[in-house]
Amino acid sequence: MDYFVSLLVTGSIGIDTVKTPYGVSRDCVGGSAVYFSMAASFFSPVRFLGAIGADCPFDLKKVFKGRRVDLAGLEVREQSKTFRWAGSYSGAMNQAKTEAVQFNVLAEAPPKVPDKFKDSKFVFLANTAPVLQIELLKQLKRPRFVAADTMNCWIRDHLPALKRLLKRIDCLILNDSEARMLAREDNLIIAAGKVIRLGPSVVVIKKGESGSIIRDSAGRLFVLSAHPAEVVKDPTGAGDSFAGGFMGYLAGQGKTNFAALKKAAAYGTVVASFTISDFSLKGLTKTNRRDIDRRLRHLRKLTQV
Amino acid sequence: MDYFVSLLVTGSIGIDTVKTPYGVSRDCVGGSAVYFSMAASFFSPVRFLGAIGADCPFDLKKVFKGRRVDLAGLEVREQSKTFRWAGSYSGAMNQAKTEAVQFNVLAEAPPKVPDKFKDSKFVFLANTAPVLQIELLKQLKRPRFVAADTMNCWIRDHLPALKRLLKRIDCLILNDSEARMLAREDNLIIAAGKVIRLGPSVVVIKKGESGSIIRDSAGRLFVLSAHPAEVVKDPTGAGDSFAGGFMGYLAGQGKTNFAALKKAAAYGTVVASFTISDFSLKGLTKTNRRDIDRRLRHLRKLTQV
Repeated sequence: MDYFVSLLVTGSIGIDTVKTPYGVSRDCVGGSAVYFSMAASFFSPVRFLGAIGADCPFDLKKVFKGRRVDLAGLEVREQSKTFRWAGSYSGAMNQAKTEAVQFNVLAEAPPKVPDKFKDSKFVFLANTAPVLQIELLKQLKRPRFVAADTMNCWIRDHLPALKRLLKRIDCLILNDSEARMLAREDNLIIAAGKVIRLGPSVVVIKKGESGSIIRDSAGRLFVLSAHPAEVVKDPTGAGDSFAGGFMGYLAGQGKTNFAALKKAAAYGTVVASFTISDFSLKGLTKTNRRDIDRRLRHLRKLTQV
Repeated sequence: MDYFVSLLVTGSIGIDTVKTPYGVSRDCVGGSAVYFSMAASFFSPVRFLGAIGADCPFDLKKVFKGRRVDLAGLEVREQSKTFRWAGSYSGAMNQAKTEAVQFNVLAEAPPKVPDKFKDSKFVFLANTAPVLQIELLKQLKRPRFVAADTMNCWIRDHLPALKRLLKRIDCLILNDSEARMLAREDNLIIAAGKVIRLGPSVVVIKKGESGSIIRDSAGRLFVLSAHPAEVVKDPTGAGDSFAGGFMGYLAGQGKTNFAALKKAAAYGTVVASFTISDFSLKGLTKTNRRDIDRRLRHLRKLTQV
């Protein structure tokens, strides 16, 4: 087994209902671990860890058929129900409005890391309670590069646990409003520096249609534009797809130097641009690595000063 | 006289009082034509057109001493008072809050274009009532590339006049919220296309700290990141400085092809980054073309995928 390409993700599997100006997608496959894995699998094999209930209407084996996603970490809990989320987007479609949410299996104990996944070197902890993210990390032997996502409710209500997590991870991926909230600082460049001082050696701040910035503990900075999109059918999963492209590229290359982080973020933004082009996973499943590389070249051309 | 480098600006000269988290600057020199001229003069001679009252506390000849700004179009109206603006910035400092405004001389007839300015080939019409912008244009002989700025109040309350203006100019420079309002479209890439269909062959949409986009009538697109800034002491004049760098570069080169527009926007964003680094004109007056070129190289490095 290749030492470098062991990439583990843990996060949600969701039954999503999404409404946008382009239409409605009911009870479709969603969730952070699903978007992440689909995106990362263009670059690296993925080890999948997550839980569903007996009610899950889709078969994840079929969803990931032909893709390098190892579902050994998928727990089907017969007594539980799958996480459900319903949301809508309007206007500039920068932010989802949650219409309904049923945590179900996500409110239970997190899935157990299978023995064969415990040596994973690259790890992505999708957004969930920081205590659960820490518990998951404790199940792993010496990972090399751990990235985590978080969100406003954990920053607001679980800050001590989140700060403990930040001391154990290498990279925090979060959006601009979350970064401002966590750093208590409106200027994003300063906010990025303040997040670094909380623990991670790398911070990636996502700004939606306005791209992203990376800052590291050596003070290096990278500013990346998003691929401009005229058609945004469904932004759900954009952030997790970005993280998937980002971590997938790093794991596939077995590198975490700043040049690799920059290219990884560029792949992340390109993969996310496919995600938002259609509902649910359709934008991702109809693309391939060649399309992704072509769009990366296009992004370079569009942004070259 | 060089045919290409005749760049005319018309806009305001203001007595500004600005409050930001970094301090207060009272009765300092401001106004769109002033910021524009200072920024553009790094790249091209500038022909200045504007009016002040007898009360003006600063001498524009001294302000522009040693710079290539021809003040033959400066009208001092003994019976009038100078435009005054007081504003404050807080939080992310993306938007000024106007605390007080006295239009004074700006509410009178616009300044008359001196005969020797009438052959100007590059023209910037800073933000004012669209009917006044049209009147100014009518005083000029066959300009080659006319750019204008506008703002929300003209889009909301003077749309027919603004639409007449748009049919007479080559380039509209406006910010993201104004572009969305004018195009009645939240997606900025589509909004840019809709603005193009109203007349100008080029539209530049400024997004503050998130950079800018350019779209032209051939469908070409350019996405530019702003130079990341940790210290933003006073954002006043950032947009006019961007326009100054942009138009100054085009006039200095005598070019308006897409490659020139891209480089012009990059210079615009770099010059604006100096403006916001200090109060009033201080950020601009303490820089020089070498610093500007150095920062442009830095921006390239920070954004290269």
